[in-house]
Amino acid sequence: MRIEIPREVERLGAVRFYGLQKVLELDSGLKGDVTPEPGTGIQQLPYEALYETGKQMAIVIPVRNERLRLIEGVLAGIPHQCLTIMVSNSPREPIDRFSMEKEALENFFQFVNKKALIVHQKDPGLAESFRKVNYTSMLNDKGQVRDGKAEGMVIGTLLASMAGKKYVGFVDGDNYFPGAVEEYVREYATGFNISQSSYAMVRVAWHSKPKIVASKLLFRKWGRTSANTNNLLNQLISHYTGFETEIIKTGNAGEHALTIDLALQLDYSTGYSVEPYHIINLLEKYGGIGKSHLQELKGQSIEVYQIESRNPHLHETGDKDHIKEMSYIAMQAIYHSPICPDELKKDIFNKMVRQKLLSNDRKPPKPHIIKPLCTIDLANLRDYLNSTLFARSQKMGFPTLSECLLN
Amino acid sequence: MRIEIPREVERLGAVRFYGLQKVLELDSGLKGDVTPEPGTGIQQLPYEALYETGKQMAIVIPVRNERLRLIEGVLAGIPHQCLTIMVSNSPREPIDRFSMEKEALENFFQFVNKKALIVHQKDPGLAESFRKVNYTSMLNDKGQVRDGKAEGMVIGTLLASMAGKKYVGFVDGDNYFPGAVEEYVREYATGFNISQSSYAMVRVAWHSKPKIVASKLLFRKWGRTSANTNNLLNQLISHYTGFETEIIKTGNAGEHALTIDLALQLDYSTGYSVEPYHIINLLEKYGGIGKSHLQELKGQSIEVYQIESRNPHLHETGDKDHIKEMSYIAMQAIYHSPICPDELKKDIFNKMVRQKLLSNDRKPPKPHIIKPLCTIDLANLRDYLNSTLFARSQKMGFPTLSECLLN
Repeated sequence: MRIEIPREVERLGAVRFYGLQKVLELDSGLKGDVTPEPGTGIQQLPYEALYETGKQMAIVIPVRNERLRLIEGVLAGIPHQCLTIMVSNSPREPIDRFSMEKEALENFFQFVNKKALIVHQKDPGLAESFRKVNYTSMLNDKGQVRDGKAEGMVIGTLLASMAGKKYVGFVDGDNYFPGAVEEYVREYATGFNISQSSYAMVRVAWHSKPKIVASKLLFRKWGRTSANTNNLLNQLISHYTGFETEIIKTGNAGEHALTIDLALQLDYSTGYSVEPYHIINLLEKYGGIGKSHLQELKGQSIEVYQIESRNPHLHETGDKDHIKEMSYIAMQAIYHSPICPDELKKDIFNKMVRQKLLSNDRKPPKPHIIKPLCTIDLANLRDYLNSTLFARSQKMGFPTLSECLLN
Repeated sequence: MRIEIPREVERLGAVRFYGLQKVLELDSGLKGDVTPEPGTGIQQLPYEALYETGKQMAIVIPVRNERLRLIEGVLAGIPHQCLTIMVSNSPREPIDRFSMEKEALENFFQFVNKKALIVHQKDPGLAESFRKVNYTSMLNDKGQVRDGKAEGMVIGTLLASMAGKKYVGFVDGDNYFPGAVEEYVREYATGFNISQSSYAMVRVAWHSKPKIVASKLLFRKWGRTSANTNNLLNQLISHYTGFETEIIKTGNAGEHALTIDLALQLDYSTGYSVEPYHIINLLEKYGGIGKSHLQELKGQSIEVYQIESRNPHLHETGDKDHIKEMSYIAMQAIYHSPICPDELKKDIFNKMVRQKLLSNDRKPPKPHIIKPLCTIDLANLRDYLNSTLFARSQKMGFPTLSECLLN
């Protein structure tokens, strides 16, 4: 991959937000093709380097009712050297969608001669293990694992760390273009290759997102939701730096990856706020604002890379409510952050009222926050997961981790 | 790339048509990941192998008025190790589209530190060189190089052979997904890696082609044109083998690649018939039917691979006339082949009349055929091209090959 070196950077405390990097070549060859190019502002990541990083990476696909046809394409796009982890929250009745997913995965991975993990979010073994280590922010009032993509991401991160991986990346299961999935994974590896820190995050900005407008495809650059979320996050940063900025281009980036070291430190906000909340949480903890967690970093900085994919993003289209909800919950996450300045709070509130998301006399709801994995007894949790998930829970009809560990 | 081994093959004379091969993994890792998998019917092509083949490959992009934005994406999808050749037939007035293309190419290749070739189909140096070696089938009655994609492909093949390449592949300049372009090139390399012969062709069958239907995307497997062309070519093959077959799935495959050795032997039919005509011409010359050219092959066979891409094919949509024309000219090419049996001829004629492409009392037009490059004095042609295209032809306002040889 040949890619721009980021020209801009915003520094807040230990956090570095790097400016958007454009991709010039998807495949820039092998090590022998690397030539010193001083002053061009471009660097080349040879295949071998991305491959080695990929070997240490787990790719998590959070799934809920996606069409199997699409999931199979996504699997084909994940490079062979990465571990694939599927965390499903698909219904098991009246049709057992999860068995179908499991079957498709087993079939695929048998032919590509590789291991993969699949687990159901509602597996009682999971909930049981979480209860034992008092990881209650992952549980609902019935004692089950909560619904939601963020919860699936936390489970995926946990499994990635149990599998001994250094990086965890997320891709959606409804992407129409396997080649785009492959590109995202390559971009994750590129970011981790460039990074100097063991606390790094890579976020993908879509080149464009095709929409059908008047029976033609329009390649939109920024959806309104993304523009709004990015704008608010940039205002938040500007407040503390004193300089207006447009550095954040990936506020809603579903395609992102983290080092496991960083992933274990972060709080997760549920629903569609998970992606913008990563930025907020980084600022809260490591931005040098308020209560500092800098000692956790052992002197390292946190590097956030933003890479613009070359492929457009073409996935199954959500409905309009979904878009509205996405924008609303992102605003809630910023609004309720302890570092959100009063002025921005007021702006966000007015916006919510204007958009008829909230009546004038109410307070915006607060997104549920999942505690960082580092705050729980991980060693014990891993033991519990190993024993409970490996023990059959036939009564519930859920397959167990041992069944899910393909191969 | 992990790919199926073809299960079926149709043999006619020296020609082997292999059945469609599906792709399982776009990136199957490095040599170390190759494990012996006897009996699975699947093989893995490691990155290094595809890379080495890519080094010997030129990718030709025939261009005519494609949007620069799209062309730039296509360039980003071509692996670094391949030589890129653009053959443009874009108008030079009232706006000089060709200079814009040249500028975009220069800009891109400066940043990726690689050489590329761009030439205009109407460059008088080209026409002059063709005249000198009596390559008149490439010229129109004004003595210029003829319009048409096939003519551009012949020029691209010529330049690829002059650059010392062993393979030439074609990709369209209007593809929306750089990742799909990269996949096509990888599939070309895969086919040539599998092949045992220096006379090989790789044809890509699209996984699907998204169409906008009632404001939604429908992923069509086969367009009607493709189905019709494939069906007629299969009937042609069946006539000579005595067994019905469905082997041909890539009759209209614009995405294809050839060994230079094979490309130099073939006649080119112009317009949209160029792709189906490759199949017909192979049968005519090497199918063991009628006048045989088998001595040209020095005992080798001709291997035709058909690979189904994992990515859908999303490109700028042509109009309906284009589709009709495509189908019509493919039928003309088969109709006029000396090996087309009378019965099939009658069927095709009736179809043309039924589809109102032709009136009952007329004969279908005959596509123009360009003579194979091997029949002309190639050594001389190369000398002429070197001298005439390198000499400035400022009066005409055309840039020359030397100007076009980007560095």
